Amino acid sequence: MSISRNRIDVNRTKNARILIIEDDLDHQLLIKNALQQSFTGAEAVIKSTEQEAIHYLDECIQTGRRLPHFILLDLYLPEREDAWHTLKEIQNRSVEIGNIPVVVFSSSSHSEDISESYDRGATSYIVKPVGFTEWIDYFRTLKDYWWETAILPGNH
Amino acid sequence: MSISRNRIDVNRTKNARILIIEDDLDHQLLIKNALQQSFTGAEAVIKSTEQEAIHYLDECIQTGRRLPHFILLDLYLPEREDAWHTLKEIQNRSVEIGNIPVVVFSSSSHSEDISESYDRGATSYIVKPVGFTEWIDYFRTLKDYWWETAILPGNH
Repeated sequence: MSISRNRIDVNRTKNARILIIEDDLDHQLLIKNALQQSFTGAEAVIKSTEQEAIHYLDECIQTGRRLPHFILLDLYLPEREDAWHTLKEIQNRSVEIGNIPVVVFSSSSHSEDISESYDRGATSYIVKPVGFTEWIDYFRTLKDYWWETAILPGNH
Repeated sequence: MSISRNRIDVNRTKNARILIIEDDLDHQLLIKNALQQSFTGAEAVIKSTEQEAIHYLDECIQTGRRLPHFILLDLYLPEREDAWHTLKEIQNRSVEIGNIPVVVFSSSSHSEDISESYDRGATSYIVKPVGFTEWIDYFRTLKDYWWETAILPGNH
């Protein structure tokens, strides 16, 4: 069975939910505003720590609330080890949670940060956009690829 | 260290190499032409079977040739089991090969095909574009996300 791209778009981009795990309050605000401006209808759920994020995911399962379709994880949370631990927890929580794509983002473009993110099972790696305009560009591209071209787990 | 997006683009989209595993000869031609038209400088390496694809990846390692940055894997190759087996071989070959993102594509939009692709570690799932124009759109989006926004393993 094949379905047309246009029909998919309308259904899939509605009620998009992205979990953003970021400890910097300024960045949180910037990301939330950029998402609202570039991706109509998307909801940003922002958590500052591993504990808060995992609690939120567990709560979705327990209460039957829809899981986020996508996770953005800050690499320096504030240390890399915090992000690696969070990633591992997400992967091992349950099949449903573990299948959510996790994109690691960071101001770092060091090769070892990029390689290690992929080694540990991140879906992709982005260098953190430098300002509001760049975040808007980023979310537009994210929407084009993940919502309008690919099909995310839990969104079909 | 942060680097500007524009500087990244120039370096990264040059010499992009995509391995496409697709058994239908008509689709192979369509995909190759669409890629050439929508992603200047990208090279499509097309293989028809698991055996050919794995042989190519092994040869890259043995001869020191650059690995592809990205893999597109047809789900019905001609059976799903062939694609699952290919995916597993890629994941278990070596860390370097196993880290290459594998996007599963298929004319099917069945929930179980989508869920199982993610369960088995596919990076993402796309419903196969229906024609040449749709393939061009797809490759443009692919380039925007994976080459111009994210950083792929082995491309930094």
